[in-house]
Amino acid sequence: MEHKQQNILIIGAGLCGSLLALRLGQRGYNVTVYEMRPDLRRTDISAGRSINLAFSDRGNKAMKLVGIEDKVKALCIPMNGRMLHDKEGNTFLSNYSGREHEYINSISRGELNGLLLTEAEKHENVKIHFNKKCKSVDFEKTTALFKDYHTEDEFIEDADCIIATDGAGSALRKSYYLEKKFLFSFSQDWLTHGYKELSILPAEDGGYKTYKNALHIWPRGDFMVIALPNLDGSFTVTLFLSYDEGEYNFNNLATPEIVTEFFQKEFPDALALMPNLVEDFFENPTAPLGTVKCSPWHYKGNTLLMGDSAHAIVPFYGQGMNASFEDVVEFDAVLDQYERNLLNGEASWEMIFTEYEKARKKDTDAIADLAIDNFHEMKDHVGQAIFQEKRKIEMALEKAFPEDYSSKYSLVTFNEHIGYRQAMLRGRAQDKAILNMLSDGVISINDDIAVILDKVKTETEAILEDDRVARLR
Amino acid sequence: MEHKQQNILIIGAGLCGSLLALRLGQRGYNVTVYEMRPDLRRTDISAGRSINLAFSDRGNKAMKLVGIEDKVKALCIPMNGRMLHDKEGNTFLSNYSGREHEYINSISRGELNGLLLTEAEKHENVKIHFNKKCKSVDFEKTTALFKDYHTEDEFIEDADCIIATDGAGSALRKSYYLEKKFLFSFSQDWLTHGYKELSILPAEDGGYKTYKNALHIWPRGDFMVIALPNLDGSFTVTLFLSYDEGEYNFNNLATPEIVTEFFQKEFPDALALMPNLVEDFFENPTAPLGTVKCSPWHYKGNTLLMGDSAHAIVPFYGQGMNASFEDVVEFDAVLDQYERNLLNGEASWEMIFTEYEKARKKDTDAIADLAIDNFHEMKDHVGQAIFQEKRKIEMALEKAFPEDYSSKYSLVTFNEHIGYRQAMLRGRAQDKAILNMLSDGVISINDDIAVILDKVKTETEAILEDDRVARLR
Repeated sequence: MEHKQQNILIIGAGLCGSLLALRLGQRGYNVTVYEMRPDLRRTDISAGRSINLAFSDRGNKAMKLVGIEDKVKALCIPMNGRMLHDKEGNTFLSNYSGREHEYINSISRGELNGLLLTEAEKHENVKIHFNKKCKSVDFEKTTALFKDYHTEDEFIEDADCIIATDGAGSALRKSYYLEKKFLFSFSQDWLTHGYKELSILPAEDGGYKTYKNALHIWPRGDFMVIALPNLDGSFTVTLFLSYDEGEYNFNNLATPEIVTEFFQKEFPDALALMPNLVEDFFENPTAPLGTVKCSPWHYKGNTLLMGDSAHAIVPFYGQGMNASFEDVVEFDAVLDQYERNLLNGEASWEMIFTEYEKARKKDTDAIADLAIDNFHEMKDHVGQAIFQEKRKIEMALEKAFPEDYSSKYSLVTFNEHIGYRQAMLRGRAQDKAILNMLSDGVISINDDIAVILDKVKTETEAILEDDRVARLR
Repeated sequence: MEHKQQNILIIGAGLCGSLLALRLGQRGYNVTVYEMRPDLRRTDISAGRSINLAFSDRGNKAMKLVGIEDKVKALCIPMNGRMLHDKEGNTFLSNYSGREHEYINSISRGELNGLLLTEAEKHENVKIHFNKKCKSVDFEKTTALFKDYHTEDEFIEDADCIIATDGAGSALRKSYYLEKKFLFSFSQDWLTHGYKELSILPAEDGGYKTYKNALHIWPRGDFMVIALPNLDGSFTVTLFLSYDEGEYNFNNLATPEIVTEFFQKEFPDALALMPNLVEDFFENPTAPLGTVKCSPWHYKGNTLLMGDSAHAIVPFYGQGMNASFEDVVEFDAVLDQYERNLLNGEASWEMIFTEYEKARKKDTDAIADLAIDNFHEMKDHVGQAIFQEKRKIEMALEKAFPEDYSSKYSLVTFNEHIGYRQAMLRGRAQDKAILNMLSDGVISINDDIAVILDKVKTETEAILEDDRVARLR
């Protein structure tokens, strides 16, 4: 492929930045990437972020685009459903879909990021530099100021355009906000809950101490514990809990005794698998859970935010990484439309960035809202009778009519051909239809499944139509 | 009244700050107010903000609380409805309510603010200082740093608690955001439209050039002009227009010829009243329209945001000032509950601030969203047939059943005994019910009005119930 004469500077070689570097490298651009951390293939760093993640169809669409689907598959542990644990230690497996081929995966952040870096570096037009932190971006001059952590030197880089994939604490976004040179809409919203990572270590024989192929949840209404499997036989466990409300909270879980008492009372079966609980609890940080939205993502054709820097979300839909990967797919599709004219001067980066944001922002706003919804669903609704009935009906619908019905979860997770916003609108209408028809006795789990499908479809369309009429804009 | 030994520092003597000073003065606190601007009773300053405002029942509730309802009434010009102007210059008066005693008022910001300052200063325990700008707040030490604009000196003031009523650009809110000492949720959202103030001057005989007792609107779908009357016979006119979209926008209205052409084409009857258009247009600034939300408003019992500093909203519901005045009423009600225990040490400012935010924030969030809704309603929906039919039906309902029906507009504007959030939920459900029943032919304007009331009530309750079932949280 001809090396295009455009120089693109990428800030941040995390999951989104390294995938973007790979794809732009494949397209023939001159790509330079600066990453503040050491090369994670040579250093053991968790980078303060969760060490495994949910990987699903939208993320996989990006892996297909860059041709590494098989290599990624080797890193995946399928999770077919949620394994719910009640206080008595009873478990109940709730599949993610009525279709057997639909499941999500647990994947190591570090392994996947390392693979993407290695694939990107195979292109001689891609250069990745580590230990170089971006301190600020001059978005009017299209330059960025970096500090080299080894030499302590500061240096300025310029490029034809700069794309910041530097995560929730983005230096470029900070420059947009603080310099007030244009109207920058911005929000940061924190949940009242924080999270702490814990672990279930492998069994002595190296096997898994509990069921491997599920995302385990201990829902307790106001708080919860979850666990995702790792390839080495361990599980990464996460406690989501209020900072200061309720009988037990992060502020008052201050001694080994209270922590143990809390787990003994609320999560006895998990505690039995975690002799290392107290050590983990007091070694690992408590971190906040925030949502970031902003607009515009770009300044003229000079700079662009992508991935978490543009739209950080809470982790409850397992879509953070998938959404960032889908950003690259969407950006690639816009490049397909404009690239020829970019080279002959009839198109510009400004047109590309504008078109990309227009196509993409509605969907990243939607997944941010869906992720908040799922926080309440996971910690609370999964334990409620009407929700469980709805879930049973949806599983039956997906099984009986695999081509005709997808739940909100399936629309979001397994239907990468539609955007998050469309998945949200249709999925929420379906939920409302089923919950109300259950509540009114219009349908029940024992009805003929074809009759249920018909009623759900009709009611869903009526709900969507009523909303269309009422929201005139 | 006994002078309580609590010293309260108020930052900002705008509408909210001066009302708060007056009320806390009446309650016997030692109140000190610092305002960055000169005393507006002695200097002619517009302070860069609109010179007249909509004043309605929620604001009046606060005037009753402090006992100056009659003095304020003398400053008011009643506006009974919206006077709509089409492109051909035809006008159509649409009342705000089917009840004759329900109307809004146009009032001068400067006159009202001056009255509140004068009333506050009647209390010897209230001291107001002008030309002293707050530069930052140390919310851990409960001190604020001020700069005296006359002497250029900087000085620090402390107090038992500090309440910042310093508007949309609040120094305290900036300190909360930048210092990152606690999880501060924050959003600023800009509309794509800006605004510019213009004027219709009084007639030569000192009278009004167009109908006095209405809020005039020239709705044009993507943009609009409005006008509110002043006591001197003039109208303050505001153009709301996109910065850069559409055939005409603020970016391309760059010459007197284009400005005149735009008004000639879109607002010919307004242009005929505005020989001073071009002069106004190029003398007055174009300003952005933003919404600010944040949380928490308080830091422990040390500091509190109130009024626009906590919740700046766009002007389209005419509720900005009314919401800030209602803040003071709500705060006063919480003081009623806790004050006795504050004096004996069993309550604290932290309890008061926490309780106030808990009671109030849901309502200020709601009016922020309602104000955005009304932007679309005013510039667009008011010109659509189905909306006009809905409006006719609602006027007929309010007239026939004054005790039994209130439109969303009435719930928000004239029903100060319910909060904005309740008004929003019920009002939106009513709108949805009427629009859908009109669209489906279930009701029509010629039906028996009692039958319509029955159907609207039943359908509204069904919509609210469906939402309750679907939103389990």
